[in-house]
Amino acid sequence: MTYDLWYWPTIQGRGEFVRLVLEAGGIGYRDRARDDGAEAMMRDMAGRGPRAPFAPPYLVADDVTVAQVADIVLFLQDRHGIGSQDAGMQYWLHQLQLTVADLIAEVHAVHHPVDPMAWYREQRDEAVRAAGQFRRKRIPKFLDHFEAALGAEDGPFVAGAAWSGVDMALFQIVAGLRYMFPRRMAALAGDYPRLAALHDAVAALPAVAAYLASERRVAFNTDGIFRHYPELDGDG
Amino acid sequence: MTYDLWYWPTIQGRGEFVRLVLEAGGIGYRDRARDDGAEAMMRDMAGRGPRAPFAPPYLVADDVTVAQVADIVLFLQDRHGIGSQDAGMQYWLHQLQLTVADLIAEVHAVHHPVDPMAWYREQRDEAVRAAGQFRRKRIPKFLDHFEAALGAEDGPFVAGAAWSGVDMALFQIVAGLRYMFPRRMAALAGDYPRLAALHDAVAALPAVAAYLASERRVAFNTDGIFRHYPELDGDG
Repeated sequence: MTYDLWYWPTIQGRGEFVRLVLEAGGIGYRDRARDDGAEAMMRDMAGRGPRAPFAPPYLVADDVTVAQVADIVLFLQDRHGIGSQDAGMQYWLHQLQLTVADLIAEVHAVHHPVDPMAWYREQRDEAVRAAGQFRRKRIPKFLDHFEAALGAEDGPFVAGAAWSGVDMALFQIVAGLRYMFPRRMAALAGDYPRLAALHDAVAALPAVAAYLASERRVAFNTDGIFRHYPELDGDG
Repeated sequence: MTYDLWYWPTIQGRGEFVRLVLEAGGIGYRDRARDDGAEAMMRDMAGRGPRAPFAPPYLVADDVTVAQVADIVLFLQDRHGIGSQDAGMQYWLHQLQLTVADLIAEVHAVHHPVDPMAWYREQRDEAVRAAGQFRRKRIPKFLDHFEAALGAEDGPFVAGAAWSGVDMALFQIVAGLRYMFPRRMAALAGDYPRLAALHDAVAALPAVAAYLASERRVAFNTDGIFRHYPELDGDG
């Protein structure tokens, strides 16, 4: 079957963590809002009754609709045999996926510290303050954790030789932080060799390489979660 | 076996979402940091090598250690047959659990909008601004979603007659928001009859009632995630 993925059509955002798994797995899907527009997505969501998603992204299969990135990844891994079949490893991979979700929420809060529904320009002063602590303390705290996690197996992926959703997520984290904070990430570059190698290993997967070179990959921009505002970057 | 739960000993915090599942399920556990202190927890975490948790809470079983609330709940539900055995329902319950996690992150950001590692008093002005939009827009948005979700089955729980982790989470959300925003929640009280009924149904489960009446239940306080600061509350 072909899945319907619904997500905002002009940004990578949280949808990208799902797109990468679908693409890497060679799983057929239609990126519905890119074909039909965001208004069609709002209508589709509104028509889903008591189990409507809280927010995009969501994935529609014949028998089930799943929202929340980490839940969609769990569903795809189960149904398509992606990643590890060992239960203990599956809990570990999911745990890391949820820590990525925490990081993503903090990344969004850097440019929207006071009101997620208001404009960046309405909270720029607070964002500058939030970005300082995020660059100095939070980026190393999260990346230290992921770098250590990558040391548990021989790699290149978290579970070893087989990729899973969290490898796609860590690729996206590295790419996104490099786009959002080029000066800070350049200063930290030498500290995270395993994460850098993981980023390159994901990008070199043939299906991912083809995706990244295609028009299906939306470019980073200042409407998404990772946003490059020079005033929020710095070496330290 | 008896699990070891590790979490900050003086707050409900994220650990409470795990404690409630353990208590409701009659599952044996030791709340280790309440016995041995937070320093013992820091030492335990530091000694866990490449798969150390990012942060408490974490649950130690004979064969696996699991962190991240939603992952721990998934593990406990799988291992103890809690909730639904239907795969589609399991994805739905987990999806809601992850939306609760999003709400919890936003609740924490209300009193720590700029720097999660700094004091509340250092970001009180920003917190007042953040609380205003949170009370007016975010509380109804989340509670509307959960209220609608409770309309899909006959109840009293999300999956119908059998409780699961997300019911414990929604109980905690209602209790926590009532503590943190008594004026706002009083103004909204009539809008969420299913959530109010769910709260009461969870509190009336004999194992939960016994827990809530015991010294094992830490009281709400202004060190946790739900914090009552009068200047952050309001009728609208």
